[in-house]
Amino acid sequence: MELKYTGKTKDVYELEDGNLLLKFKDDVTGVDGVFDPGANTVGLTLEGAGRAGLRLTKFFFEILKDKGIPTHYIDANIDEATMTVKPAEVFGSGLEVICRYRAVGSFLRRYGLYAKEGQPLDAFVEVTLKDDDRQDPPISEDALHMLDILSKDEYQELKALTQQIGNVVKEELAKKGIELYDIKFEFGRVENQIVLIDEISGGNMRAYKDGEYIEPLELEKMFL
Amino acid sequence: MELKYTGKTKDVYELEDGNLLLKFKDDVTGVDGVFDPGANTVGLTLEGAGRAGLRLTKFFFEILKDKGIPTHYIDANIDEATMTVKPAEVFGSGLEVICRYRAVGSFLRRYGLYAKEGQPLDAFVEVTLKDDDRQDPPISEDALHMLDILSKDEYQELKALTQQIGNVVKEELAKKGIELYDIKFEFGRVENQIVLIDEISGGNMRAYKDGEYIEPLELEKMFL
Repeated sequence: MELKYTGKTKDVYELEDGNLLLKFKDDVTGVDGVFDPGANTVGLTLEGAGRAGLRLTKFFFEILKDKGIPTHYIDANIDEATMTVKPAEVFGSGLEVICRYRAVGSFLRRYGLYAKEGQPLDAFVEVTLKDDDRQDPPISEDALHMLDILSKDEYQELKALTQQIGNVVKEELAKKGIELYDIKFEFGRVENQIVLIDEISGGNMRAYKDGEYIEPLELEKMFL
Repeated sequence: MELKYTGKTKDVYELEDGNLLLKFKDDVTGVDGVFDPGANTVGLTLEGAGRAGLRLTKFFFEILKDKGIPTHYIDANIDEATMTVKPAEVFGSGLEVICRYRAVGSFLRRYGLYAKEGQPLDAFVEVTLKDDDRQDPPISEDALHMLDILSKDEYQELKALTQQIGNVVKEELAKKGIELYDIKFEFGRVENQIVLIDEISGGNMRAYKDGEYIEPLELEKMFL
């Protein structure tokens, strides 16, 4: 198998059957040793972070499969920290789609004039471009359409899928007394269908218990 | 008459009949002495800039009036550099609405991965919050709705008005062989109607002739 791409938190290999193998690493995004799911740099390395992230990802992707929500997931090997997925075509050079239930992070940094920290946001969806050089700028439905990244119909489909998947994660966390504040997804096309790709782990979300933020690794321990 | 507000490029007085008097100053926005219509600071002072801006504003507001497009404009006194307007209620703490015909400025800084400098943009509309402390962040239709700044219907009305007014300015400039690249508007409510407020001058737009950028004062000289 051939190494295709080295990412910040995982490496991607091509398998002989055309599928991809994702190897989860122990690196998590952040700045100066502090975890931040929105950051573009590896902030810290945590022993076991890769396997813990994969365990949570496997848990959620299998729930989504049962619910008939399309993802790239085929199967996972926890011991090896690897996940086998269908190859997907990303939109443009990649998008991040955020679903927000409470105002924290970049939302608050941008809209703090109108929103208080922790204010409920009702599954608010926003899209940012994956573009480290330009600090992952937010982009509107109209701009995505004009720049040929997403059609208007694809945008609406992406938004609906994001809220649907966000709500699944939120409900699962709520069963453990944990509240989801926001979560970040990536999507791609597999055979002309929009599917969830990448992962759903502690590193993609901000979760709180009794008003206290839960670190990704701790979340994964509490959760599984 | 009472001074109500001191702005970066004009002062606002309240008249006895309840209308407002805008006094155009010779300050233009920019950074380090270079004009930038998107900047939040006064970059330079140019003798006659206030009167020149008012002359162009009067010209455009009177064309809009003839076309039945609603604005806050009542009349103007060029010698005094003043304009009388109806008082309008702004949306939230104020919005800027940009209409783009070619990719330059902040659009290119954000979306340079997908757009080339000067690429045509087909009257693309985007909204930013007036918030100096947060560098006037862009905001989506969904976020404007969620934060109770604009309803969905108001957003569509604002977008349509922006393109309508942008196209009027673009056509007038084209008559002089000048090409409009982008233009920034402000809107408000007067008696429950959305109307154009503030000004339409060289300081609000980027205009080019034969591919060369035209400074605001020069534009006003070429134009009138």
